[in-house]
Amino acid sequence: MHSTGDVRVEERDDPKIIESTDAVIRLTATCICGSDLWPYRGVEPADHLLMGHEYVGVVEEVGADVKTIKVGDFVVGSFVISDNTCEICRAGYQSKCVHAEFVHGGIGTQAERARIPQADGTLVATPGQPEPELIPSLLAASDVLGTGWFGAVAAEAGPGKTVAVVGDGAVGLMAVLAAKQLGAERIIAMSRHADRQELARFYGATDIVTERGDEGIAKIKELTNGLGAHSVVEAVGTQQATMQAIGATRGGGHVGYVGVNYDVKIPGIDLFFAGIHFHGGPAPVRRFLPELIQLIWDRKIDPGKVFDLTLPLDRAAEGYQAMDERRAVKVMLTF
Amino acid sequence: MHSTGDVRVEERDDPKIIESTDAVIRLTATCICGSDLWPYRGVEPADHLLMGHEYVGVVEEVGADVKTIKVGDFVVGSFVISDNTCEICRAGYQSKCVHAEFVHGGIGTQAERARIPQADGTLVATPGQPEPELIPSLLAASDVLGTGWFGAVAAEAGPGKTVAVVGDGAVGLMAVLAAKQLGAERIIAMSRHADRQELARFYGATDIVTERGDEGIAKIKELTNGLGAHSVVEAVGTQQATMQAIGATRGGGHVGYVGVNYDVKIPGIDLFFAGIHFHGGPAPVRRFLPELIQLIWDRKIDPGKVFDLTLPLDRAAEGYQAMDERRAVKVMLTF
Repeated sequence: MHSTGDVRVEERDDPKIIESTDAVIRLTATCICGSDLWPYRGVEPADHLLMGHEYVGVVEEVGADVKTIKVGDFVVGSFVISDNTCEICRAGYQSKCVHAEFVHGGIGTQAERARIPQADGTLVATPGQPEPELIPSLLAASDVLGTGWFGAVAAEAGPGKTVAVVGDGAVGLMAVLAAKQLGAERIIAMSRHADRQELARFYGATDIVTERGDEGIAKIKELTNGLGAHSVVEAVGTQQATMQAIGATRGGGHVGYVGVNYDVKIPGIDLFFAGIHFHGGPAPVRRFLPELIQLIWDRKIDPGKVFDLTLPLDRAAEGYQAMDERRAVKVMLTF
Repeated sequence: MHSTGDVRVEERDDPKIIESTDAVIRLTATCICGSDLWPYRGVEPADHLLMGHEYVGVVEEVGADVKTIKVGDFVVGSFVISDNTCEICRAGYQSKCVHAEFVHGGIGTQAERARIPQADGTLVATPGQPEPELIPSLLAASDVLGTGWFGAVAAEAGPGKTVAVVGDGAVGLMAVLAAKQLGAERIIAMSRHADRQELARFYGATDIVTERGDEGIAKIKELTNGLGAHSVVEAVGTQQATMQAIGATRGGGHVGYVGVNYDVKIPGIDLFFAGIHFHGGPAPVRRFLPELIQLIWDRKIDPGKVFDLTLPLDRAAEGYQAMDERRAVKVMLTF
C-alpha cells in the first residue's frame, strides 16, 4: 500500500531465511482483512506497507533451528508472530508474546511467498495436504475465525449462556460459529443485512436483532428477561458498537471485544456501573489453531463460507475496493 | 449533606418497617467512605442526601417476611441492597441485583438507626455478639474491605501471582490484605506516603513503588522481568491511576478496578492492544461477607486498622473535613 487507498501488486525480491528460526512459505491462498481497510481509509497511516497477515501455504525452506515445521508441510499461521514458549505464550496470550510482531506492515502475506519468523511458534502444520475445498476454511483460521473464536471465548460463551454478537462482518459471523461450537444456548446476531442474517443463521444464530444503539440494547434486554446477555462479542470497533456491547451485557457478564477500536473512548463510569468483565484485543490465534484446524479437517465447521469473492492476487486492488464499498464480506486472493 | 461541603447531623424520625422484607437496625458503628467525598467535593450532585452506606449494628425489628435475620442479631450489611436470590445475585453479582438500591443517598447509615430493605439478602449475622475490638474490622467488611477484596478477586490475585495495587487509600490497603489472603506471591503497593507504606507492609506488601504514571509502569515492569504484573488493582478512580493500572498489567493479565471513576475516559485502542482483562465496578460485597466475617471472627485478618480517626456521630462534619484534607485515611463514627 503506497498510500491511503493506493494498493498495488508489484514484483519484490523473494524472501530468504534471515534468522535460524524463520521459515519461508509459498502461499496457497491469502485474503483481505477488515483491518486492512484502516490504512486503506486513512484511519491508520499507510506509507509503503507490505499488506496481508492471513495465510496458508507450503513450507519451502526452514532455518537451522526450526524443529517442528518441515519443508513440504502445509501450514496455517497466526497474524501475530509468537515463539509459543515464553511465559506470556504459555499463559495463552501469544499475540502479546515477548517476540510478538505483526505480520501486517513489515512482512506481508498478500504475496506469493513470505518469510515467517519464529516458525515453530507461529505456524501449525495440518495433518496432511488438504483437499482444495478445505483451503478457504483453513485460511479463515489464520485470523477471522481465530479472532471471532477468541471473541466468543473472551465473552465466556458456553452452555446455558445467551450470547449476543455486535457486528455482522466476517469476524462477527465467526463469533456466531464459535458461540455455537462452544455450546451457547441462544445466539443473537445483531445485523441489518438480509444476506448476512442468513449466514448468521447458517452458523448458528437463533435470533436476529436489527436495532442498534439504545434500541438494540433494549431489544437484547427484552429477549433476556430484562437482564441482558451473559456474553456479548463486540466485532466492529466503533463507539456505538462498544457502548452497545457494554449496555447489552448483564451485571457480572462478559464482553469479548475484537473490533480494532481506533477513536473509541470508553466512559470509565459507564463501564464501572455496568459491573461487567471486559476482555479482548488482538486474538491469540496461535492458542486456538490446533483445535480449529482439527475441526476444519474433520469437517465439523465450515468457516470458509465467509469468503464471498475470490480474485487472483494481481487483482487485489479490486478486492480492497469491494470490501471498502461493502460489496463483499471478505475477499480471498489466490494464485 | 445539604449541599456540597455542607454536612450536618440533624434529628430525623426513627425509621420504620415499610416492606415486609425490611429490617430496622440500631447502628453500633458507621464510617465515612472515600466515595462520600464525591458529593462533598461537588463531583457528584449533593442535595439533601442521607449519607453513609457502611454499617454494623443490632437488629431491632424485622418485617413479616424476613426469615434468616432475627431481632437481637448483630449484623453486617453491604452498601448495596440485594435480594441474594435473583439470577444476577446467584451468579455472585449482588451489587447488580434486580432489586439493587444504593444505601447511600436514600437510606443513609451515618445515623443511629436505619431501615434496611431486603434484610435477608443484604445483611449477614455474626456468629454471636462481637467483642468490642472486632467492631472496626466488621464495619470495614461492609464496604472498604469487601471492595478491596473484590478488587483483588477481579484482578485474579492468587498463588504464584504478582499483584500491584494502585492507590494507598483504605480500599487499596484492603486490596493488599486480600491479595495476601488469596495467596499472592508478591504484592507491590504503589504509595508515596510513609505511614500508608507502613500499613501496606503490615497487610502484606512485599514491595513499594513510589513512582506514578509512566514511571510507575516502568518500575512495575522492571520488577517483573519486563512483563508487567499478573494482577493489578485500581483503587483510585482517576485517569492517571486507570492508565497506570492498564499499563502495568502483562498481556493476558487482569485489572480489578474499584475506584469510582468519574471523568475517566479509557482510550479503547490502548485497552485493545494491552490485551488484558478489565473487570470491576461496585463490589458485590454480599458475596464475600460470610467469608470475611469468619476471617475477622477467627482473628485471621485485622482490617479495622484502616480507621485512623474515630469520632462520635455528632462530629461527623469534622470527619469529612479530615478525610477531604487527607489528614485521615478513614474515619469511624460511633455513638
